Amino acid sequence: MTYERLNISKMHGYTPGEQPDQGGMVKLNTNENPYPASPLVAEVLAAVQLEELRRYPPPLASSFRTEAANYHGIRAENIIPTNGGDELLRLAITTFANSGDTIAIAQPSYSLYPVLAEVQGCQLQQIPLDEDWLLAGDFVAQLNDADARIAFVVNPHAPTGILMGVERIAAIAENFNGVLVVDEAYVDFVDPELNYDLVPLIESCNNLLILRTLSKGFSLAGLRFGYGIGATSLIEPIAHKTRDSYNTDIISQQLATAAIRSVEHARQSWSKVRQERDRLTQELGELGLACLPSQSNFLLAKVPHNIGADFLYRQLQQQQILVRYFEENRLRDKLRITVGTADENTLLISALGKLLNTLEK
Amino acid sequence: MTYERLNISKMHGYTPGEQPDQGGMVKLNTNENPYPASPLVAEVLAAVQLEELRRYPPPLASSFRTEAANYHGIRAENIIPTNGGDELLRLAITTFANSGDTIAIAQPSYSLYPVLAEVQGCQLQQIPLDEDWLLAGDFVAQLNDADARIAFVVNPHAPTGILMGVERIAAIAENFNGVLVVDEAYVDFVDPELNYDLVPLIESCNNLLILRTLSKGFSLAGLRFGYGIGATSLIEPIAHKTRDSYNTDIISQQLATAAIRSVEHARQSWSKVRQERDRLTQELGELGLACLPSQSNFLLAKVPHNIGADFLYRQLQQQQILVRYFEENRLRDKLRITVGTADENTLLISALGKLLNTLEK
Repeated sequence: MTYERLNISKMHGYTPGEQPDQGGMVKLNTNENPYPASPLVAEVLAAVQLEELRRYPPPLASSFRTEAANYHGIRAENIIPTNGGDELLRLAITTFANSGDTIAIAQPSYSLYPVLAEVQGCQLQQIPLDEDWLLAGDFVAQLNDADARIAFVVNPHAPTGILMGVERIAAIAENFNGVLVVDEAYVDFVDPELNYDLVPLIESCNNLLILRTLSKGFSLAGLRFGYGIGATSLIEPIAHKTRDSYNTDIISQQLATAAIRSVEHARQSWSKVRQERDRLTQELGELGLACLPSQSNFLLAKVPHNIGADFLYRQLQQQQILVRYFEENRLRDKLRITVGTADENTLLISALGKLLNTLEK
Repeated sequence: MTYERLNISKMHGYTPGEQPDQGGMVKLNTNENPYPASPLVAEVLAAVQLEELRRYPPPLASSFRTEAANYHGIRAENIIPTNGGDELLRLAITTFANSGDTIAIAQPSYSLYPVLAEVQGCQLQQIPLDEDWLLAGDFVAQLNDADARIAFVVNPHAPTGILMGVERIAAIAENFNGVLVVDEAYVDFVDPELNYDLVPLIESCNNLLILRTLSKGFSLAGLRFGYGIGATSLIEPIAHKTRDSYNTDIISQQLATAAIRSVEHARQSWSKVRQERDRLTQELGELGLACLPSQSNFLLAKVPHNIGADFLYRQLQQQQILVRYFEENRLRDKLRITVGTADENTLLISALGKLLNTLEK
C-alpha cells in the first residue's frame, strides 16, 4: 500500500538539468551566470563565525529585506525573501490557490509550474503562445474564462528569451481577476536601454507578484536565495502564515545582502553576458542554427530537421558540452543554450562547426 | 479584496521564539545548543569557494545522504535532507494528507503542527496527554477512529522533555493506519545508557518517518538543515515529487556533512548539556520550581500560583534573561527553560533566587 495522496502518487516530479559531479564539462545547460559573484560576497563569507550558526537566523531576513528595498526604491514590507525563487512559486500556490482551483501558464514555459500545480492538486490551464512566441492576444480573457486564481508568466520568457514590455504586463495585471506572478529570474540580463522595470507597478496592481532570484544575475545558484516583490496584501500572508518559519539561513541572508550591496560587480557580468549573447546569436545563425532574439542569458536555437536537436544534444554531451533539450511540443527541434564565458562559447561554436561539417558529408 | 485562500485568510501564523538582535542576552528561550559546532565545520566553512556558489547544488545533497546513512547504519535512499526539520514536517503533510484530511497531534505539543495543518486545509485532532504527560493509553485507537492520515509525535516530548520508549512507539506505528511522524528534534540529548534508537524500526514499519535536525544537537540552528529517515516508500515521493527541486544549498550541505562526520565533538556538548540539565533540575526544584524529568535540552518548570509564570517570564526578560512562556492550556503556570552553559544557568538561578526572595517579602 502507499500512503501518498492520490495526486502525488499519480504525478511525475520535476527533472532538473544535469548537475554533473565531475569537472571539465562546458556547462551550458542550467543558465548559471558564467562569472563569479562579487568580492564583497567572498569577504562576507570569509567573515562568517561558527557562533552565528548556533542560533536561529532572523526569521524574515530583515537585513536583506532592507537592502533589497533600497535597491528597488520600495519598502521592506513589499519584499519576501525565499529559499530560491522556486520557493516563492510554491508559496504563491500555497497562499492563493486551493486544491481544485485553476492555475494558468503559457505553453511552453518553465516546466516546474505544472509540477507545483499538481502537488497542490490544482487544475492546469495551458495557454499556447502564438506563432511569434508571444502571449495570445486574448490571454487575459482566457485567464478569466478559466477562472484562474494564479497565472505564471516568465519574463523574459523561458525558454525563448523574448521580453514582453511593461505596458503589456500592466494590462494583464489590471484586467486579470487572480494573482499574476511574473517570474523575472532572467531580468538582470535585459538591455538597460530598454528601461524595463516592473517594480513601480506594484503600487497600482495589488495582484502583481514579481519573482527575483540571485541564482542567475548574481551568480549564486548554489546559495538558494530569491525574493518576491508585491503589495503588502500579497506579501504579508506569505511572510506570516504560509512560509516555513525560518525559510532562509543566516549565511545565505548575509551573502545575499552583500550581493545586492555590490550590484555594480554583477552589472559588469550582465554586460559581458549580453555581448557574448549577441556574438553567439550571430555565430549560431551562421552555422544554420537560428536563434530567437533573447533578452536573457540563454538562446533557443533551432536545429535543422535533417540533423535533429536530440541527436545534436547527445553529440555535444559526448564532447563534454552540456546544453538543454526539451522533449516537449514546439521544442523538440530546438536546443536551449546558456551563454557561457567567451572561451566556453568559442568551444561550443567550434565543436558545433566540426559536428555539422561531418554530418553534411 | 483579498486573494488569499479562505483558510489562509482566517488563520494565524506561527510565532517563533524571540530572536533578539542585540547581544548580551542570556538566551534560554529557543533550545539552541549553548556550545558551538565542531572545528571541522569551521574548517569546511573556511574552505568554501565563491565558484561553488555559482552553480546549482547537488539537488538531493548526495554527500550528506551518504554520510548520514553511514552514521545511522542505513542506506542513503532512506534519508531525505531538508531545509531545517520544519520543511520535513510540511513535506509530510504535502505528501500524505489531502486538504480536508485529518492530522492528529498530542496536546500540548509543538505549536507549529496546527499551523502547518491549517495551511494545508486539514482537520486537526488534538489528543490530550494524560495526567502524567504521557500519550493517552488509547492513543492509537483515537488516531484510527479519527481516520488520521498523519500523526505527529515529538520524542523526547516538547515542551515537557519526557522520553517515550522504543516499544511504545513501535506499538503505535504497527497499529496506526496512517503515517507516524516522530519528531526527534531533541533526541541527541537523551541519556546514552537508555539505548534509545528508533531507526532500526524503519525496516519493519513502512509508515514511520523520523525527523532529525542539526539545529539543536549539532549547534547549527542558523544553517537550517534537517533530514527525514524512513522506508523508501515514504522517502521517494518526497525526494522526487513534493520537495522543492533544490531545497538545500551547497554551503549547508557541506557543513551538515562535516557536522555528522565530526559527531564526537557534538557528543561532548550533549554530555555537558545533560550534566547541566541535572544540576538545573535540582536547583530550580530547590527554588520551588519543580521540573518534569527531561531527556531534552530544556526543562518545563512549574511556577507557584502566587507568583505566576507570565509574571516571572517578564521579570526575567527585564534582566536580559529570555525563557519561553506559552499562553496555552496546562502551560500557563509553567516556563520552558533551555539548558544553557554553566555560567548562563548560574546567572538564571541567581536571578530567580533574588526575584523569588523579593516577592516573598
